[in-house]
Amino acid sequence: MRKIAILAGALAMTGPTAKAQEALPVEMERLGAVSPALQAYTADDLFGSVWQDSALSQRDRALLTVAALIARSEDEGLAEYIDLAIDRGVTPAEISETITHLAFYAGWQNAMKGVDAAAEVFEARNVTAADLPAVEPQSMLPLDQESEDQRQSFVQERFGNVSQGVVDNTEKLLFLDLWLRPALAPRDRSLVTVSALIATGKVEQVTFHLNRAMDNGLTKDEASAALAHLAFYAGWPNIFSAMPVVKEVFDSREG
Amino acid sequence: MRKIAILAGALAMTGPTAKAQEALPVEMERLGAVSPALQAYTADDLFGSVWQDSALSQRDRALLTVAALIARSEDEGLAEYIDLAIDRGVTPAEISETITHLAFYAGWQNAMKGVDAAAEVFEARNVTAADLPAVEPQSMLPLDQESEDQRQSFVQERFGNVSQGVVDNTEKLLFLDLWLRPALAPRDRSLVTVSALIATGKVEQVTFHLNRAMDNGLTKDEASAALAHLAFYAGWPNIFSAMPVVKEVFDSREG
Amino acid sequence: MRKIAILAGALAMTGPTAKAQEALPVEMERLGAVSPALQAYTADDLFGSVWQDSALSQRDRALLTVAALIARSEDEGLAEYIDLAIDRGVTPAEISETITHLAFYAGWQNAMKGVDAAAEVFEARNVTAADLPAVEPQSMLPLDQESEDQRQSFVQERFGNVSQGVVDNTEKLLFLDLWLRPALAPRDRSLVTVSALIATGKVEQVTFHLNRAMDNGLTKDEASAALAHLAFYAGWPNIFSAMPVVKEVFDSREG
Repeated sequence: MRKIAILAGALAMTGPTAKAQEALPVEMERLGAVSPALQAYTADDLFGSVWQDSALSQRDRALLTVAALIARSEDEGLAEYIDLAIDRGVTPAEISETITHLAFYAGWQNAMKGVDAAAEVFEARNVTAADLPAVEPQSMLPLDQESEDQRQSFVQERFGNVSQGVVDNTEKLLFLDLWLRPALAPRDRSLVTVSALIATGKVEQVTFHLNRAMDNGLTKDEASAALAHLAFYAGWPNIFSAMPVVKEVFDSREG
Repeated sequence: MRKIAILAGALAMTGPTAKAQEALPVEMERLGAVSPALQAYTADDLFGSVWQDSALSQRDRALLTVAALIARSEDEGLAEYIDLAIDRGVTPAEISETITHLAFYAGWQNAMKGVDAAAEVFEARNVTAADLPAVEPQSMLPLDQESEDQRQSFVQERFGNVSQGVVDNTEKLLFLDLWLRPALAPRDRSLVTVSALIATGKVEQVTFHLNRAMDNGLTKDEASAALAHLAFYAGWPNIFSAMPVVKEVFDSREG
Repeated sequence: MRKIAILAGALAMTGPTAKAQEALPVEMERLGAVSPALQAYTADDLFGSVWQDSALSQRDRALLTVAALIARSEDEGLAEYIDLAIDRGVTPAEISETITHLAFYAGWQNAMKGVDAAAEVFEARNVTAADLPAVEPQSMLPLDQESEDQRQSFVQERFGNVSQGVVDNTEKLLFLDLWLRPALAPRDRSLVTVSALIATGKVEQVTFHLNRAMDNGLTKDEASAALAHLAFYAGWPNIFSAMPVVKEVFDSREG
């Protein structure tokens, strides 16, 4: 954090000045009335520095921020961040599909909070049904049958006698349906999933999903930058709990 | 998820048509304006399928859903789910006692959110003080002294020098008081506890409380069905984190 | 929990009667309309007993409660607890700095909820910019260079190739900046941090931060009392997950 004098400059960096200041998803005046220091960290370090780091695109940063907020049940500023995401190149269809995805990965009612926030933004932007992913897409993404067979037989063997319902729904609803929906590219769906897992401290599933994300095209540099970005929205402790697991994944793919 | 055309049918299955549609704790129109796909998953797979599975009663599903939402601090739709629970046979006294129980097991302010939501429902339904559990019940449930002595001496020995206050309050307020209150059957109190633990990722305590739940009458099939149900409200990752622990409990009771 | 008849007495114990009843951060009437039992636990056991235990000052209890609520994203009653904290001796500057600190340790949007609540309280109390910590303090606290070098080289070696951005921001923003800000005494900053970690189940970082807290002057008795206090606000399961880690820290410092 440096001087708040550079605030205007920092904001201006995020886009055409007027628009950016309008879009910045923070009520800076109220923030300043409680903590001028946090106002400065927000302007200088978060928006002025982390968001500007080109190791991860602004579009990806906005998408993973929305995913982290929904997963953490953060309605505070959620509509503003969804609005920012659309400004940064995330389509309304991708927002819609991210919320659908997170219903399964972060709980139905957290997704419903995402629905409330997105409904507000979509209405203001005149998003209509034609802009949203269809219930039944014309064609689904191809399935990697071998990989899915391995996953399913591993889960069936371990957990079939614990809850066949969980095992069946995981296959039918998630891996043979949700993950094959074309409205979110597999790499983006994985980015949303990994971000949600890290942001909510569910490190047990990070190994599987970060490997899947990197198989789907997320680079190591992007994953590293995502961690640094998520630290602000998920809190440092969630990042430090995830780092040993991410390290293992990185090491195992290089070894 | 199949076609949204079956939506009306799915809703009708949950009870007398008009009432069920009134009671469905989701604003379907707003949901459809953001994600027609999530609207269809909600109607077809969640309410049309999972809630209809007879392996766990609708009453138990409603009770554990309310517990999971309160434990996760989800105010979104909470009043609607409490209303649905009363429709499905959970009494206002049981709702009241569940909130009291979760103050201890999920944090005081989460319980206060439950109070806000329940106050609204209770007022609409003309629930009065006479319908609620007394502060001092006329008689408490019998204590299993031997089992409590074992629990207490284990905890005292391990943690007495860490925080005698925690150890004392755990005995006095929880195991010699809260758990003996008759307003919630021990099996239901355990179901609420286990659901809250799984829904918030507190797997460390699942072993103790799932064993207690099954000692109190929860069957293995009910526990399995509860996991499949909770997956939707707690998110898949919390279920997959709990499954190895549930498996160990199931195995240890069969071995 | 004993008879609700002692309610008035319990509240009176927390301060001059009229003021205390005004300040109690709970809507007791609404609570009684849903759960007379929880109303009695709140009055008798939480405010009438735990808050009165002199092993930890009322001021510290209020500070750690606010920290726990912000970390858990609990907006329910947050303004009332911030107001109570100021009544109990926490300064507005310390509230401001606690929120700034928790932006990093519990996520930016949780801090923003704290900002909303504090803005309301600060306005009612006529807190002005002059009462708040400066963006650039005239002098920072002294750095323990050796200890910081150890921390930084440990983290760099382990995680530098996972996310250099996280490692760099942790050093630059947290340990060479935030932790050196004089607006919150190191012992209080540590108390806030440890409370936030325990309240959100992040036990992995408790070892480092509880040791730091005790190095910074938090006594073992205070830490024990903090655990018993936090049990109510974070839920018993988070406390029982933290106890083995706290035990190890206590044992290692005595051994």
